[in-house]
Amino acid sequence: MSTSMEEWQTRLNEITRGIGPLDQAAMQAARARQDVLTKPHGSLGRLEEISMQLAGITGNSMPQVREKVVVIMAGDHGVVEEGVSAYPQEVTAQMVLNFLRGGAAINVLARQAGARIRTVDMGIAADIPLEPGLQVRKIGHGTRNLAMGPAMSREQALESVLTGAALIEDEIRAGADLIATGDMGIGNTTAAAAVAAALTGRSAEELAGRGTGIDDDGLGRKVSAIRRGLDVNRPDARDGLDVLSKVGGFEIGGLAGVILGAAAHRRPVVIDGYISTAAAMIAVSLTPAARDYLIAAHVSAERGHRTMLEWLHLEPLLNLNMRLGEGTGAALAMMLVEAACRVLAEMATFDEAGVTKKSG
Amino acid sequence: MSTSMEEWQTRLNEITRGIGPLDQAAMQAARARQDVLTKPHGSLGRLEEISMQLAGITGNSMPQVREKVVVIMAGDHGVVEEGVSAYPQEVTAQMVLNFLRGGAAINVLARQAGARIRTVDMGIAADIPLEPGLQVRKIGHGTRNLAMGPAMSREQALESVLTGAALIEDEIRAGADLIATGDMGIGNTTAAAAVAAALTGRSAEELAGRGTGIDDDGLGRKVSAIRRGLDVNRPDARDGLDVLSKVGGFEIGGLAGVILGAAAHRRPVVIDGYISTAAAMIAVSLTPAARDYLIAAHVSAERGHRTMLEWLHLEPLLNLNMRLGEGTGAALAMMLVEAACRVLAEMATFDEAGVTKKSG
Repeated sequence: MSTSMEEWQTRLNEITRGIGPLDQAAMQAARARQDVLTKPHGSLGRLEEISMQLAGITGNSMPQVREKVVVIMAGDHGVVEEGVSAYPQEVTAQMVLNFLRGGAAINVLARQAGARIRTVDMGIAADIPLEPGLQVRKIGHGTRNLAMGPAMSREQALESVLTGAALIEDEIRAGADLIATGDMGIGNTTAAAAVAAALTGRSAEELAGRGTGIDDDGLGRKVSAIRRGLDVNRPDARDGLDVLSKVGGFEIGGLAGVILGAAAHRRPVVIDGYISTAAAMIAVSLTPAARDYLIAAHVSAERGHRTMLEWLHLEPLLNLNMRLGEGTGAALAMMLVEAACRVLAEMATFDEAGVTKKSG
Repeated sequence: MSTSMEEWQTRLNEITRGIGPLDQAAMQAARARQDVLTKPHGSLGRLEEISMQLAGITGNSMPQVREKVVVIMAGDHGVVEEGVSAYPQEVTAQMVLNFLRGGAAINVLARQAGARIRTVDMGIAADIPLEPGLQVRKIGHGTRNLAMGPAMSREQALESVLTGAALIEDEIRAGADLIATGDMGIGNTTAAAAVAAALTGRSAEELAGRGTGIDDDGLGRKVSAIRRGLDVNRPDARDGLDVLSKVGGFEIGGLAGVILGAAAHRRPVVIDGYISTAAAMIAVSLTPAARDYLIAAHVSAERGHRTMLEWLHLEPLLNLNMRLGEGTGAALAMMLVEAACRVLAEMATFDEAGVTKKSG
């Protein structure tokens, strides 16, 4: 890949232009089939809606979920020097090792869901010694402190998005047909809240929560850091790359790229919680058509998340008071998405089962 | 089993007396382990709570879900002669055949969840020809019309509960460690609404919904039937068996028995939607201790269901706008219950993973 900004921008434009509307004919065919399956009309609620959405995304009136992948992107954040997290920065790398060795919550839940995990270093501050399974795509060794100036250059923002898009293209070529996003990065709820504030115009107080569990003082520092970040950087809400570079993070950019790449290849993306939703907001601000390819896994217990989902016009599938990240909510939701497709494909029709239809 | 009412009442008393409180020591041990797993404290929300509840139920600080069973109980309802359903009564038997042949939504979802299904005829109006897999435990050929008098005798109510309890004891002996309830029966939302109205004191209008999809006229007939049923029968809210016999159903009694039998053997029960919740209300009115053994799968789209869950002080895991019954919501929720147990058992601790704990 050339390092020329112009070529990169051209590549991004190609990807976003490749994201088309949902296939209405496939959706109507899925709807028609739902209506002759042995159940009262509409009685499977969201499962029926999800099956139609997947038909529209894939262009297949009976979509199947065969290969699931959870892409976890990790990155560090210069803003941690403002004292915004309850955990030290070294935990980002430690948790990535935990992912690679199978001991984290996402490993447990992905195993249950039958999903493989791809762990990507998008910009951890430390250099992790060569570890099997880790994909190193470092854009930098952590971002700069967004409270003091831009978190990254515009070039790095573009590079992080294109890196995510290229990575998911490889996964899709390898068979992935249901994609979930996950994240790891001490300090990343601060960056995600800043992204959300920049794009929605809502206040830092409204959007920032306690992340991994900071106390009142820590929350005050977090809100202040976000406010100063917006003040000093003046991100342009009409320009997703500007927002990403000013107050985002490398893993947020990477996940936005995953979403765009998946949508361009007509694959559904289950977005996890707070960080993934900020990434989705960047993706949708780059091209609104990407929205239709998203399934919101859950509403996080983190303050502000519902506001972000509302901005995206997405209704979460789950509300389990979770706030872990890593893709944990998305792994659970993948099982519901699979259930939606199985129902459509495997249930008997009224005629097949010899069941009398509704009278009148 | 003797047909003597006294002996049956004695047997029921033995079951309800056998339902003890949750094991506090096991719950505390589960809580302590949750707090050293590699995630911020409490960040898995409801999954952590469910893992503790299962520890308390089973007395095992690291509970496992190995064998799941969905018990579907089917019965018919004399009240259908009031024109309360959009489907004819013959559909109860037709759908039971659909369950036995694997074509219904519950078959698809139970397959995904790795659960076996037990289909029980508790009182279908028709006699289904001998079918492999069907357990025939008929208390009667459908109930009588609850709008005109008692749906069944007190003896039949007692028999239906004891039948459910005996049946689940067999399943537990065969290894079941997570039990879900499901139902089938044209007209059964009318009976369930009447049970809920009798126990909560709320009005028929507040509790009755459109079931399989009746129109406004049908809903009017349904509300009227429930009102007349309460008027003519005067069920005693302090006596669960009286409520069951006056306005309940054979499958509702059977499912109440499943809940009591499971709780007496310290097994968790995932209750499905509207009908299963009415059964749970009967079970809890017979012995309040049964409540702690229940997990509410989802809140149904059927009007009144949330009111019923609130009466039970249960918070549903899912809200997917479903209203099918059969155990479909419970099958989905079983996957979340399994996830809760897997996380507790399989995640690494901070020490094992070499991850730095929260500072301060």
